Amino acid sequence: MIVSMKRYATKAEIETVCERIREFGYKIHAIEGEERVVIGAVGVGDVTNCLESLEALPCVEKAVRISAPYKFVSKEFRSTRTVIRINNGTGLEIGGDEFTVMAGPCSVESEKQLMESAIAVSRAGAKVLRGGAFKPRTSPYDFQGLEEEGLKLLKKAREATGLAIITEVMSDRDVSLIAEYSDIMQVGARNMQNFALLKTLGKCQRPVLLKRGMSSTIKELLMSAEYIVAHGNPNVILCERGIRTFETATRNTCDIAAVPVLNELTQLPVILDPSHATGKRSLVPALSRAGVAIGADGIIVEVHPCPEKAVSDGAQSLHLEEFDRMMNDLRGYIALWKQSRMAEAAMV
Amino acid sequence: MIVSMKRYATKAEIETVCERIREFGYKIHAIEGEERVVIGAVGVGDVTNCLESLEALPCVEKAVRISAPYKFVSKEFRSTRTVIRINNGTGLEIGGDEFTVMAGPCSVESEKQLMESAIAVSRAGAKVLRGGAFKPRTSPYDFQGLEEEGLKLLKKAREATGLAIITEVMSDRDVSLIAEYSDIMQVGARNMQNFALLKTLGKCQRPVLLKRGMSSTIKELLMSAEYIVAHGNPNVILCERGIRTFETATRNTCDIAAVPVLNELTQLPVILDPSHATGKRSLVPALSRAGVAIGADGIIVEVHPCPEKAVSDGAQSLHLEEFDRMMNDLRGYIALWKQSRMAEAAMV
Amino acid sequence: MIVSMKRYATKAEIETVCERIREFGYKIHAIEGEERVVIGAVGVGDVTNCLESLEALPCVEKAVRISAPYKFVSKEFRSTRTVIRINNGTGLEIGGDEFTVMAGPCSVESEKQLMESAIAVSRAGAKVLRGGAFKPRTSPYDFQGLEEEGLKLLKKAREATGLAIITEVMSDRDVSLIAEYSDIMQVGARNMQNFALLKTLGKCQRPVLLKRGMSSTIKELLMSAEYIVAHGNPNVILCERGIRTFETATRNTCDIAAVPVLNELTQLPVILDPSHATGKRSLVPALSRAGVAIGADGIIVEVHPCPEKAVSDGAQSLHLEEFDRMMNDLRGYIALWKQSRMAEAAMV
Amino acid sequence: MIVSMKRYATKAEIETVCERIREFGYKIHAIEGEERVVIGAVGVGDVTNCLESLEALPCVEKAVRISAPYKFVSKEFRSTRTVIRINNGTGLEIGGDEFTVMAGPCSVESEKQLMESAIAVSRAGAKVLRGGAFKPRTSPYDFQGLEEEGLKLLKKAREATGLAIITEVMSDRDVSLIAEYSDIMQVGARNMQNFALLKTLGKCQRPVLLKRGMSSTIKELLMSAEYIVAHGNPNVILCERGIRTFETATRNTCDIAAVPVLNELTQLPVILDPSHATGKRSLVPALSRAGVAIGADGIIVEVHPCPEKAVSDGAQSLHLEEFDRMMNDLRGYIALWKQSRMAEAAMV
Repeated sequence: MIVSMKRYATKAEIETVCERIREFGYKIHAIEGEERVVIGAVGVGDVTNCLESLEALPCVEKAVRISAPYKFVSKEFRSTRTVIRINNGTGLEIGGDEFTVMAGPCSVESEKQLMESAIAVSRAGAKVLRGGAFKPRTSPYDFQGLEEEGLKLLKKAREATGLAIITEVMSDRDVSLIAEYSDIMQVGARNMQNFALLKTLGKCQRPVLLKRGMSSTIKELLMSAEYIVAHGNPNVILCERGIRTFETATRNTCDIAAVPVLNELTQLPVILDPSHATGKRSLVPALSRAGVAIGADGIIVEVHPCPEKAVSDGAQSLHLEEFDRMMNDLRGYIALWKQSRMAEAAMV
Repeated sequence: MIVSMKRYATKAEIETVCERIREFGYKIHAIEGEERVVIGAVGVGDVTNCLESLEALPCVEKAVRISAPYKFVSKEFRSTRTVIRINNGTGLEIGGDEFTVMAGPCSVESEKQLMESAIAVSRAGAKVLRGGAFKPRTSPYDFQGLEEEGLKLLKKAREATGLAIITEVMSDRDVSLIAEYSDIMQVGARNMQNFALLKTLGKCQRPVLLKRGMSSTIKELLMSAEYIVAHGNPNVILCERGIRTFETATRNTCDIAAVPVLNELTQLPVILDPSHATGKRSLVPALSRAGVAIGADGIIVEVHPCPEKAVSDGAQSLHLEEFDRMMNDLRGYIALWKQSRMAEAAMV
Repeated sequence: MIVSMKRYATKAEIETVCERIREFGYKIHAIEGEERVVIGAVGVGDVTNCLESLEALPCVEKAVRISAPYKFVSKEFRSTRTVIRINNGTGLEIGGDEFTVMAGPCSVESEKQLMESAIAVSRAGAKVLRGGAFKPRTSPYDFQGLEEEGLKLLKKAREATGLAIITEVMSDRDVSLIAEYSDIMQVGARNMQNFALLKTLGKCQRPVLLKRGMSSTIKELLMSAEYIVAHGNPNVILCERGIRTFETATRNTCDIAAVPVLNELTQLPVILDPSHATGKRSLVPALSRAGVAIGADGIIVEVHPCPEKAVSDGAQSLHLEEFDRMMNDLRGYIALWKQSRMAEAAMV
Repeated sequence: MIVSMKRYATKAEIETVCERIREFGYKIHAIEGEERVVIGAVGVGDVTNCLESLEALPCVEKAVRISAPYKFVSKEFRSTRTVIRINNGTGLEIGGDEFTVMAGPCSVESEKQLMESAIAVSRAGAKVLRGGAFKPRTSPYDFQGLEEEGLKLLKKAREATGLAIITEVMSDRDVSLIAEYSDIMQVGARNMQNFALLKTLGKCQRPVLLKRGMSSTIKELLMSAEYIVAHGNPNVILCERGIRTFETATRNTCDIAAVPVLNELTQLPVILDPSHATGKRSLVPALSRAGVAIGADGIIVEVHPCPEKAVSDGAQSLHLEEFDRMMNDLRGYIALWKQSRMAEAAMV
């Protein structure tokens, strides 16, 4: 059950509502929101009477039953798209009327590498710069990232280009450090069910891009998003990046149908990652076109000034000129994408 | 190794070539083609000298080594798209400059059901009518198809609408019967490695649409296509229809990246089946758009005048009006598709 | 619904029963059995009254509702283990009080190779000789089997050793030929849902070993068994041979828990194939021990006098001495297996 | 490359060795061990000469090239089984001559529940008590564990029964807290690639049971173990607990062949978790037998005094009497297990 309070409800009013919910046998789980407080409750009780009783209170705007196991991120709770505002001073929004392109190198390697990438992707039309400073690597002997030094380079690139920054956070210990340097914090596939991390991310307001685990179901992805939202941070962006299957022709298998499936279940924005989904540079442009056509809110693409020398993910990184060419080719598809967003908006 | 003879090579010349190949330690595997004979050879021998010696013969056009385990269907063998001509008198081609839409009910159920479907899909722009007369069903107690009676109805629908007919063949015993009634013979996912069936299909010239097995790799799909081609029938169309993974939100997981992967490995046309890939009607239009955008040669879609009453696959079948709407929505994407085919042709 | 007639029921009595079932709205699906006729019916109707009405008939022994989608192979239908008698004159039974070991080469290659194998496996304690004469190969260029010549060699080996013969059948066209030469007909993983083949096998009485498809669920395996039984052949042996997953350290992933799962759902015997499940010779003995311990009815193992020179599956074939050593090591485990079968029998 | 120093090598000697390794172009990665120092080095250099030069030093015992991507955990590095000593004062060892049974409830729920379980499993022959105080739950609304209160109850149970304690650690922040209360720290499947956690666990000496991720390969499991060992903690126990596949008859698919595969690649002990592997109580005894037979070093089993009321994993938890019965049934298999360990020891 989700109860939306009226704007500017007082603390006393909120407490009254919580009290009443508890009387009906439910447990209060989350109170979030800035100007509007939203109360989530779970448990087993007399739903119908509880909802009625709550809606009778003047401070309550709406009380709804949510049948899905995920409450706050479910479409039953929210009827319009969640548009995530990025606070980098450029008015950038994800999940709204613009298709968002995020691009950059897998790892931040050096100032030169990062700056060249940033300038090129910005020119080609990307709005967000990706780059890993803390790297989750299968082997302890592989490059583990430049850590804080890498974060500083990202900050510099933001200042130089106006791009928003997305970078990965791997431990709840690092959340505040990374929040300081980035506009969007990325949770990698391997950490999608690192619940300690999810809870900590729920306690800040910085947008989070949550990547689907490589063997996680769509429902589990939504449950992990629910962790973040239920702990107080509604700014979650979902990301399909390929799942693990028996097929080895690609690094992962892009479950592209997850995009419309998620669009049926949630209002959160959905980004497609064609680089990790395929693991192969030559497949990225085709899959990016498919991502636009299927209705994703954006894509996140790995590029590198010299992929052959990249310390990680070289095989799937586009050369800067390839990225530029791809962006040109996407133009017609993005125009169709915008048409259908407009048509959708007109219907509401 | 593949040896293309010059046009109108004589029997004696062909025999000379085969003889020489055998001398170098190879085994002759297939001789196909109508006006031009092509000889495939496998084994271990002195490749370089063999190729040189063969190309020295005046009757030989080209002799090439093929490193892939699939020979005839490999891109090393053929440098241009394989365009499959359908002999239904309408000049229909698959794999060429037009995006092909195949549509129709899962099972042929009755004359009324089939005719309504045929007329509707033809009006909406489909060129091929699908419909199963022999049905592979998990349960022996489920509807097994109208069999020959169903084939007769398909023939009637072809006569009435001019649509080409595609229908499934489940046993090598039925190949000649089904070839008589259909323009394209479909091999279902469960029979992708029914080698007895593949060999028999290799002995006729009717085009074959070969569906990827639900746990078959892309390489295995190509090896199965190779069975058909190596036994004499070059008219193979590949079909991605979703693979089996842990995800249950969709009936199968559409491995959409298989389309560009196949385009890198083979010149055979590739069709996407968004109906089986998702198992859910509401996801079909989005996935169809993605199929066009990613560069498939066509789609095969299940429709039904009344999906709620369908004897099979009702949940994934579009209502006839939904199909019509989808075809309208696809128009812009198909226009972009044609632009890029034109650009590709201009580059050759 | 399944209706068992009393022994020696007359044709007229059977017809009366079928008539009554149809009156209640059900469809008759199968009538099988030699001295006792069993009638299967599916559909939607007034179950309770129908069962009552049938049991009131003096010619009916028992009428039971079966809730599983598989009827004849379900445990609801049969309360004791299905013991399959092999008609090779040695009194061999599968599924009873003895653990059955089947062994032999992947492909029948030559008389020498087969005879050496047969003699060695017989000496070591195997009761069934495996060997493929018709081979399902991914590539059309790989060895396709000696076909009828191979069958003749198998017959010779049977005559020489008294071993029962199991060999694969790949097409409904070949069923009668293979039934002539073998004691058990094997359906390979790739043909588990070749329904034309299953139906034809249902029409003979020769025992069938049905291998689980590499991406088939346990339920689908039972449905395929149901095809054979419902078409008249109750002598089905199931086989777990590994499923396809993301793991590549082994050729397939042995779903060993399928054995107790099947034991909970059906009374059909279950055989484990440690050779295909792992694809690696060194893992076969350990997995065979696990197969005994978990309660399989037997194992089927690939051996070869010289695996390095085998035309197929060399990497997973045991040398003859390795097989002998393995059989020795299994002795203690098989003794425990027999104890628990005895204890089970005593409890009934 | 791994270099074992002689016992009691001096700091200066160690530094000399490191220096020489660096001169050959390698990077020093880890120095571990208490009385004997072991140096790991990775990179690309002149291996042969480097090894020779190092072995020429009197302070070096052995210098070996390791070709596997995992170094310290590889069999190339260590020729005998890694026996993990548990410091709970009972002389308990894992990986040695005794088969280890770990058992207990999924979650610590109350003193009564835990004590009843502890006493029962101890009586039945278990040596380690499992119980979760920090619980990784898919839903934020599910029971998240008693946290430190739960740890205190575990300590109490240890004092009462002498059982060693294993409990899960979910964040690098909690490592020191959990190390204080437990004898073995468990890394759950969802955290197998939480590299921040693995690194922190590498810095303590408490044994770690590392569960395989549900879609992790065997190689990735070993790489994660390598993280812990390379950071200084050699006491790693591996655990196969089922992987995620398309099959839904069981909660996961037990990849039982992973046990002998791991035994070929590493000397670390391997434990089988039949509870999570199947998710179904009735399958646990059969799979436990298979685990003994295949040569695992132990099993970890969920039990509960009243599974129907368990807050988590009730369906897969054995009743206490069922566990007792299972332990009795395992006796014969464990006797065979010990025989083969003895035979192995005699052969060395």
